[in-house]
Amino acid sequence: MKKPFLTLAQAREIVKTYPTPFHIYDERGIRENARALRTAFAWNPGFKEYFAVKATPTPGILKILREEGCGVDCASLTELMLSERCGFSGKEIVFSSNETPAEEFQLADKLGAYINLDDLTHVDFLHKALGRVPQWVCCRFNPGGVFTLGESEEGFQVMDEPGQAKYGMTRPQLAQAFTRLRELGAEHFGIHAFLASNTISNEYYPALARLLFQTAADVARETGCHVAFIDLSGGIGVPYRPDQSANDIAAIGEGVRRAYEEILVPAGMGDVAIFTELGRFMLAPFGHLITTAIHEKHIYKEYIGVDACAANLMRPSMYGAYHHITVLGKEDAPCGQVYDVVGSLCENSDKFAIDRALPEVEIGDLLAIHDTGAHGFSMGYNYNGKLRSAELLLREDGSVELMRRAETPDDYFATLIW
Amino acid sequence: MKKPFLTLAQAREIVKTYPTPFHIYDERGIRENARALRTAFAWNPGFKEYFAVKATPTPGILKILREEGCGVDCASLTELMLSERCGFSGKEIVFSSNETPAEEFQLADKLGAYINLDDLTHVDFLHKALGRVPQWVCCRFNPGGVFTLGESEEGFQVMDEPGQAKYGMTRPQLAQAFTRLRELGAEHFGIHAFLASNTISNEYYPALARLLFQTAADVARETGCHVAFIDLSGGIGVPYRPDQSANDIAAIGEGVRRAYEEILVPAGMGDVAIFTELGRFMLAPFGHLITTAIHEKHIYKEYIGVDACAANLMRPSMYGAYHHITVLGKEDAPCGQVYDVVGSLCENSDKFAIDRALPEVEIGDLLAIHDTGAHGFSMGYNYNGKLRSAELLLREDGSVELMRRAETPDDYFATLIW
Repeated sequence: MKKPFLTLAQAREIVKTYPTPFHIYDERGIRENARALRTAFAWNPGFKEYFAVKATPTPGILKILREEGCGVDCASLTELMLSERCGFSGKEIVFSSNETPAEEFQLADKLGAYINLDDLTHVDFLHKALGRVPQWVCCRFNPGGVFTLGESEEGFQVMDEPGQAKYGMTRPQLAQAFTRLRELGAEHFGIHAFLASNTISNEYYPALARLLFQTAADVARETGCHVAFIDLSGGIGVPYRPDQSANDIAAIGEGVRRAYEEILVPAGMGDVAIFTELGRFMLAPFGHLITTAIHEKHIYKEYIGVDACAANLMRPSMYGAYHHITVLGKEDAPCGQVYDVVGSLCENSDKFAIDRALPEVEIGDLLAIHDTGAHGFSMGYNYNGKLRSAELLLREDGSVELMRRAETPDDYFATLIW
Repeated sequence: MKKPFLTLAQAREIVKTYPTPFHIYDERGIRENARALRTAFAWNPGFKEYFAVKATPTPGILKILREEGCGVDCASLTELMLSERCGFSGKEIVFSSNETPAEEFQLADKLGAYINLDDLTHVDFLHKALGRVPQWVCCRFNPGGVFTLGESEEGFQVMDEPGQAKYGMTRPQLAQAFTRLRELGAEHFGIHAFLASNTISNEYYPALARLLFQTAADVARETGCHVAFIDLSGGIGVPYRPDQSANDIAAIGEGVRRAYEEILVPAGMGDVAIFTELGRFMLAPFGHLITTAIHEKHIYKEYIGVDACAANLMRPSMYGAYHHITVLGKEDAPCGQVYDVVGSLCENSDKFAIDRALPEVEIGDLLAIHDTGAHGFSMGYNYNGKLRSAELLLREDGSVELMRRAETPDDYFATLIW
């Protein structure tokens, strides 16, 4: 059973100042989770989590994570600018992008970030953009083919197709890139790979680690390059559905440690630092989208209309993603009604829930849509002229802080030439 | 074969002032198409096209359409504000929304717009919001079930599921709404329905018209209410793929006329005005997203990386939608290469084309992505901190006008509390 981190009484107090819809984040949950991650990887002295800024590009969040020892994973010019302004610098930043313009490499280099190269052709592109290559540089590996894990009668627990993904270098290209970068002046190397998204399996990271550790040992031997860090990227997911079990981050850290002891240490690579680039795992469960039921409708199905829409949370509309919904104040009421919970976009896909069993919803009820802390606000858009909402922080002391104000019509009109 | 409306020479001149990526629109095409629509429905004295603002919410475009006799179909507060500022007022506006807040009904009423009610419960909601109901009011009908058209061996040419759609009233509710609205003071009624999106069939509008005309005649007889207009909504599509044939708007207008003569005229309803709310048909073919090839990549597939991404055009990523691509200056070159054409988002779905046969693309080539004039810019977002592009107008005299400037990092940061 999924419990919201906000009570009806708290929500009613908040809406006196900040009207719905809004996103709210749970500082306590964010900090405790970040600490559990650090503990799980404490066996590795160089360990660092680089939070995937794209998940929640909000200064109030980034500053909390920095206090918890995290760096940032940036994917664009504005994410680099945002991170710099939040106090991140140098090796607190990984710049991991693709189809990258030269100016973005230049800013990443100026900030002293680790640059993660997506492609072999980017080696010379980077050299041309900077006039040199950095001493420390990372390359993204794509093993190709199909990646599977945890076969059972129902199919695979994890399955994705790296061979169809636009990212990374082939294995021969990885060695070529290292050699070429060393010729151009690089001295310390990283390897990065991403194989699957939102995995609910304690085996994913250890399996990825084995693959990357063996690849690193092989490439180091082949090229003589010093591999300084291995970036396990993202991919650790969260249980969006109430019947899913959460990942056990301690077990995941221990699984990666075993692979490290078995592969890297015997290869004389016991100095390799482990990096992660988690976004969803760090933030998703610690955000709710709070919205008010404003209409009901009884046609061929039963509908509840709310004042949020896909402009505030696109995942259900874009991916058909499940997000749990709690009617605040009715946490323990029986779920005797079946509704489509819909937003106001002129898009029939704008449904937060389809055929969802809920307690009877009354107009004015406040609904908490769960697990919106990552890829929630950040994937919002202005379709239908909808405005993006505020983002609030529920502090550990119970107070509420505005981290981002709601958009106004003037924001929406800002770029227009009348 | 799809031809771009822009030549390489024109594009090269434009990029001296406006760097790629940008959306550009063809004034001549927009005007000619709008005139063809008017001609097709000239048999109906009350005919009016209400352009679906959500497709292209850009003043420069709305003003051209107003000059061509179009009104606007608005779905939100900001779309009403935008339309008012572009000079639309009164019966030049239809306000067609769902899950509508009271303040949006109030602004629509203040502007004198036709208000289209999505649900029976909105009748009393509207009455409460305004303290009265308008003299003229429209109700949205949802016939339920499954709508199909044009059965062939390959399946149906058009198929959609109104019974699963959140919009509109059932047939009994429609009569109830009319009766209740008349009690509250309404005198003239409209009926609206939307059954299927982006149809490539000259039969869709006539079939919808028959359904709505018969419904209108029945409801008028049952309730004694005066049906003043019938709004055929959107649904006329465009041929995104080069092997698709365009709709013949003259044939569509003639098909609707026949239905009108056969059903409405004999029912003594020869004064009914026909409204349309086309967006895609009015604009999609008359917009291109122009982007530069900035990277190439050779791994398990061949990739071309461009400087646009799903932030500029989400349809391929969200729907897997096909958008034709022309490499400018290579219009007649053989398509000897097969590429994935990809943007820079950290989302593997950010591919404008998958396994697309194109002429050999060189770094620096300018690509025209076709049919982006509707639901292109307007569905853009800022995911990964990406900035939305400029929108340009290619005037009939060949000059270029900036209608919307590109976003800057300051726009992206505008709502943040640091």
